[in-house]
Amino acid sequence: MISLLYLVRIRFRGYKRFFRRALLETSDYIKDDCLKINCTVGVVVSAIDCSRLHSIQVPESNIGTHFGMLLENMQGSDITFDVAGEKFHAHKLVLAARSPVFRSEFFDGMDEEKQEIVITNLDPKVFKALLHFIYRDTLSEDVESVGSTFSSVSSISETLIAKLLAAADGYGVERLKLMCESHLCKNISVNSVAKILSLADQYHASELKAVCLRFAAENLAGLLPSSTLYIFF
Amino acid sequence: MISLLYLVRIRFRGYKRFFRRALLETSDYIKDDCLKINCTVGVVVSAIDCSRLHSIQVPESNIGTHFGMLLENMQGSDITFDVAGEKFHAHKLVLAARSPVFRSEFFDGMDEEKQEIVITNLDPKVFKALLHFIYRDTLSEDVESVGSTFSSVSSISETLIAKLLAAADGYGVERLKLMCESHLCKNISVNSVAKILSLADQYHASELKAVCLRFAAENLAGLLPSSTLYIFF
Repeated sequence: MISLLYLVRIRFRGYKRFFRRALLETSDYIKDDCLKINCTVGVVVSAIDCSRLHSIQVPESNIGTHFGMLLENMQGSDITFDVAGEKFHAHKLVLAARSPVFRSEFFDGMDEEKQEIVITNLDPKVFKALLHFIYRDTLSEDVESVGSTFSSVSSISETLIAKLLAAADGYGVERLKLMCESHLCKNISVNSVAKILSLADQYHASELKAVCLRFAAENLAGLLPSSTLYIFF
Repeated sequence: MISLLYLVRIRFRGYKRFFRRALLETSDYIKDDCLKINCTVGVVVSAIDCSRLHSIQVPESNIGTHFGMLLENMQGSDITFDVAGEKFHAHKLVLAARSPVFRSEFFDGMDEEKQEIVITNLDPKVFKALLHFIYRDTLSEDVESVGSTFSSVSSISETLIAKLLAAADGYGVERLKLMCESHLCKNISVNSVAKILSLADQYHASELKAVCLRFAAENLAGLLPSSTLYIFF
C-alpha cells in the first residue's frame, strides 16, 4: 500500500507539510508495513444552502387587481349597465367568464350585440359590489364593513349583504354567494335565525340553510323552554 | 319584601313545587321578616356557538379557473397567434389586463384591429405556458414538472423555465417572472451559479441576480480553494 504513496498535503487540518518518502518509510508511523490515514472530508451542500437561505418569495396572486384596474379605467369596455339611472361600464368577456347568466346572455343569447342593458331589480350599490367581486374576486370594503353587524333583526333582508346574496344567486356567482352566506351565518341568533333561514331558502343558499336548521334544532327545541325562569308576583 | 312574593317556580334545579304564601310566611324560611333566594342563572350564548361550530367555509379563489375555461373553449376569442406554425386563440382584453406590453399593443398601438399576430422569437411550448399563466395565474404542469431539475448545467438556458423567464420579461408579466426566478434559484450550485447569473442579468431578474451574487460571495470566494484536497501519488 505505501509503495504508491509519495506526498500527502492536506490544507488547514492535519499535517501541514510534505513528508519525504524515505523519512516516512523509516518513521514510527509505519506499523506492519501499513500506514493508516484518517481523513475527514467535508461536503459543501450549496444547493440546499441556497434554497434555505436565499429562496425567492413569489407574491400573492394579483389577477384580481389586474381585472380590477380594467373596471376602474374602463379601457376596452363594451357594455354599459343602467341601474336606477346610475351607469356602470363593464366588459362582456369578464362578465361572461365569471357568471353563467352573463355568459348565456352575451355568448348564446340575444344581448350579443347590445351595448346598454337596463337593470331595474337591483340597487346601484348592490350592482357595484357585484361588479367589484366579478372583477376583483374579493368583497368590496362597503360590504366588509357592514357585513358583520345588523342594527335590527327586522331589517336583515334590507342589508347590503342580504341584497348581495340575492344578486349573487341571480347571476350564479357561487363563491360570492358563499361569502355572503358566511357573513350572514355569523349573525345567526335565537332572534335572527328565522329571518336568515327565510333568506337562505329564498336565494337557494343551501349551506346557510343547513346551518340555520342545525342551529334551530340545537338551540330552540331544547334550550329555550328549559331555561325559562317564571317568577310570579 | 315578602309581601310581593306569591309563587316561585324554578324548573330542573332547586325547589320543584309551588309554595303557598301562608305556609311560607309561617315557615322557618322567614328570618327577621326576610326571605333569601339563591338564584343561579345560565346564559345561552347562541351567536358565539354558531360562529364557532357552524361557520361556512368559503372556497379558494377560482377566478383563474374561470379565465382558464375561456382559454380552453376559445369563446369570444378575438386574436390568433401564429407561433412557429402553431395557432393559439386568445382574448385581447385578458392579455391587455395581464401584460403591459399587450396592453399598449392592443389599446394604444397599431394592433388594435389586428386579428392575427405572428411570433417568431418564441417556442410554441413557451408561448403556451405564458398563455396558461396569463389566464390561470398558475404555472402549467409542464413547467412545474421540469422546473426543479436540470439534466446539465450547460443546457440551463435551453430549459422551459429559462425560456419562460425570458418570455415573462419580454411581456412584463412580473409575477410569472418571479415564479421562474424562484424555480431557478433552487438550482443554484457552485457549478450553475455563473450560468444562472448570466440569465438573471439578461432578463432583468433582479431578485435572482441578487441571490446569485450573494451565493457567489458566500460560497466561491471562501470555500472552493480551502476545500481542495490535493493528493499526489
